Amino acid sequence: MESNWLTQPCAALNESSRDAALARQGQLTKPPGALGQLEAIAVQLAALQAAAQPQVERVHISVFAADHGVAAEGVSAFPQAVTAEMVRNFARGGAAISVMAKQLNATLEVINLGTVSVVEPLANVRDERINAGTANFAQGPAMTEAQLAQALQAGRAAVLRAKQNGAHLFIGGEMGIANTTAASAIACALLQTAPALLAGPGTGLDSNGVAHKARVIEQALAKHQLTQSDPLSVLRHVGGFEIAGLCGAYIAAAQQGLPVLVDGFISTVAALAAVRINPDVRNWLLFGHTSAEPGHQRVLAALDAQPVLQLGMRLGEGSGAAMAVHILQLACALHNGMATFAEAGVSEKD
Amino acid sequence: MESNWLTQPCAALNESSRDAALARQGQLTKPPGALGQLEAIAVQLAALQAAAQPQVERVHISVFAADHGVAAEGVSAFPQAVTAEMVRNFARGGAAISVMAKQLNATLEVINLGTVSVVEPLANVRDERINAGTANFAQGPAMTEAQLAQALQAGRAAVLRAKQNGAHLFIGGEMGIANTTAASAIACALLQTAPALLAGPGTGLDSNGVAHKARVIEQALAKHQLTQSDPLSVLRHVGGFEIAGLCGAYIAAAQQGLPVLVDGFISTVAALAAVRINPDVRNWLLFGHTSAEPGHQRVLAALDAQPVLQLGMRLGEGSGAAMAVHILQLACALHNGMATFAEAGVSEKD
Repeated sequence: MESNWLTQPCAALNESSRDAALARQGQLTKPPGALGQLEAIAVQLAALQAAAQPQVERVHISVFAADHGVAAEGVSAFPQAVTAEMVRNFARGGAAISVMAKQLNATLEVINLGTVSVVEPLANVRDERINAGTANFAQGPAMTEAQLAQALQAGRAAVLRAKQNGAHLFIGGEMGIANTTAASAIACALLQTAPALLAGPGTGLDSNGVAHKARVIEQALAKHQLTQSDPLSVLRHVGGFEIAGLCGAYIAAAQQGLPVLVDGFISTVAALAAVRINPDVRNWLLFGHTSAEPGHQRVLAALDAQPVLQLGMRLGEGSGAAMAVHILQLACALHNGMATFAEAGVSEKD
Repeated sequence: MESNWLTQPCAALNESSRDAALARQGQLTKPPGALGQLEAIAVQLAALQAAAQPQVERVHISVFAADHGVAAEGVSAFPQAVTAEMVRNFARGGAAISVMAKQLNATLEVINLGTVSVVEPLANVRDERINAGTANFAQGPAMTEAQLAQALQAGRAAVLRAKQNGAHLFIGGEMGIANTTAASAIACALLQTAPALLAGPGTGLDSNGVAHKARVIEQALAKHQLTQSDPLSVLRHVGGFEIAGLCGAYIAAAQQGLPVLVDGFISTVAALAAVRINPDVRNWLLFGHTSAEPGHQRVLAALDAQPVLQLGMRLGEGSGAAMAVHILQLACALHNGMATFAEAGVSEKD
């Protein structure tokens, strides 16, 4: 399968929309800068959407699910069966992201890229299984080149569906037991950082569990001899189908001109890989929430990213990004709806 | 006017609702603790509302507006006329809090406790002017005992209206040129802290302006000889009508059993005064946003308060609290709507 699309150019930002939005922020009835980050968000969205009145009403959430061979190394607090069980829970509306999508009136689709067990057909779940989980990267490459290309392409296809449906914003989520281990391994390789600094408790390991997880990653990285200059090779050797799906989605979103709200640790690692593959992707990324997973801050710093929220969440599924949607919506509503000093007859600064 | 009501008991929290909510959080399909602060918010609201399913659908926002005699000392970047002009802007829907209230489908009322100029009758603006602004506290007490009692009572009346309308949550906002000076002076007196550590730029003073503001406060505090053990005397000597209104509202909300979402610097100073007058008020307060106004962090620390959001806002009007409403709503939706492990057939932690 071809992956030449990955390095195709990203959409350009509209600088005149940015300038106009910046000027408007200075005229609204508030002290200059008094809306803090909300001003920057509105200005960025105006530039991304080439719009005087940016908006975030139609939100598309794609949750990519897959299993990980490395789960066999005992790196997760939960059994592997949970990945498929949670796919059912997403579909039936019981998971956190299901509840949030309903509250936000967002489109939610789940893309099964490779649970170990087959999941029966379910509404809003796309069966795009590449394999019964990745291979155990403690022993060999997590996937083949063809599998990697297929996962990246699945992400792109999700974005094309979102674009087709007129989405203003794309959120990617993930589910996969052991995927903080894969994400930590990718981040270690791309940032040339020691596993002890990036591995964290994930769904709830104790300190011995975290130390074991770091050792598993360290040994795998020693085995695969990855270089940070080849992010696709890193993804293939120690990644996961759902992480590659997110990576492909972010690249495609930037190429299609669809703003992205990135979720937590795993999504941010996928974003880091995307930016390493195609640097202009960075322009199209906003960040929703700083995870309690300790490695997140290092990956955010590498992307010079400041998330909107810090609520101590560490759930994945796209939930941290979904929490921030309303902040973006209010930033747009304020930008578009507030009166200017002239319109309101309010005196300006002395 | 009598103020004996201020020290009447606050409503009790429902501990069995708290325990039930805490137990439910442990059964929902997520790793324990993975929703971070959202879990604590849902549990607190369950205890405050004595409800298995807490909710924050009906939000009442009361914005108290008044002028300050101390504006004559040149402590604000904006002219005094702005207070009345902004009252009109609130009413016409052009101010930040107007836009946000509409987006949140919240009730918004503006209570004019004392603009210098008379404002013509406007929809959603209550004319409860106590005087044409407070007296200049650089020269004498800001208000008389009767005026203070009237302002506190106006806050209580706003809460009784909210309660009457079935509100689930009360937000108080404020508008008043020079009111960060009054709020800083109150905080200095109640926390026995030097003005240089609490005075900030407000609507946009430069460093010389901030230093001048700190000197004005320092001289006023030296003149009035206030003690932290008499918060009502502090409010009367260096406070403002709108700050006293907020203080009265918070006390009444706690007495009425109505949860409060506190806004930024000025509102938090009013909350500090309320808690000093009636300590159990603290139980009923949630905090929306950490202001960019530098003194806010000290006042929050004195109340052991961690706001939900940090967005660099510094606007007042109730806007920081309004930004956090949706976070509370999603915390409730997740608590009420997620499936348990048993309901969803999802395996628990190994």
